[in-house]
Amino acid sequence: MQKVFTMSKDVVPSGSFDVQDLKFDSAGLIPCIAQDADNGEVLMMAWMNSESVVRTLETGRVTYWSRSRQSFWVKGESSGHVQTLVDFRLDCDQDCLLALVHQEGAACHTHRRSCFYTAVRDGEKTELMTPMTD
Amino acid sequence: MQKVFTMSKDVVPSGSFDVQDLKFDSAGLIPCIAQDADNGEVLMMAWMNSESVVRTLETGRVTYWSRSRQSFWVKGESSGHVQTLVDFRLDCDQDCLLALVHQEGAACHTHRRSCFYTAVRDGEKTELMTPMTD
Repeated sequence: MQKVFTMSKDVVPSGSFDVQDLKFDSAGLIPCIAQDADNGEVLMMAWMNSESVVRTLETGRVTYWSRSRQSFWVKGESSGHVQTLVDFRLDCDQDCLLALVHQEGAACHTHRRSCFYTAVRDGEKTELMTPMTD
Repeated sequence: MQKVFTMSKDVVPSGSFDVQDLKFDSAGLIPCIAQDADNGEVLMMAWMNSESVVRTLETGRVTYWSRSRQSFWVKGESSGHVQTLVDFRLDCDQDCLLALVHQEGAACHTHRRSCFYTAVRDGEKTELMTPMTD
């Protein structure tokens, strides 16, 4: 369960979830933002197809669709940097997903905790994080 | 400046930012996640074209590209629910943006603070937030 943000005391059931209600793009994909469930840090954004969504919900292991490899991508399967699903959210238009996760180690392939380690300030790119040394 | 997450003590300059270095999709767009700079809540995801990025950085008012209206969308211009840019981030692949913002009122057109107000739990959709009453 999410611990970072204040929510309504009463959560309201609003019907069964059907993966086909999601709005996938012309390639059959939907963006999924991964957020650290403990501190709210945005870790990465990647893509899911309908089967990725189903597998993520069924296994609790966040599973993307790799557009470059055209295959399922169980996050951390090779690196060990697993994302365990804590809560799964949809946006109002059902065309974007938010996965709250427990992230093992680095989310980024550069070994930084988050992929969003570059800021643009006064026209300059600035690196905010160094690679993790675990 | 971002206050929520622990960063490296030393930020490292890594060159000038050129909007053309971003990877836009075949429609000339890049996804941009808006995150509350104060508490880390993910508020929404929308799209920018290169001119949106330039305008956002120049004006400090987060400016998307509306795919439905095919026009610039200065967030809050009609609703008053303005997003003021606090920090602008790129991901490692330069194909996704993260805007840390001060959000005036509701980010969502349903008047909820965040667009991600629906969770999927045990196969059911659950509303986590009620509309704001400001």
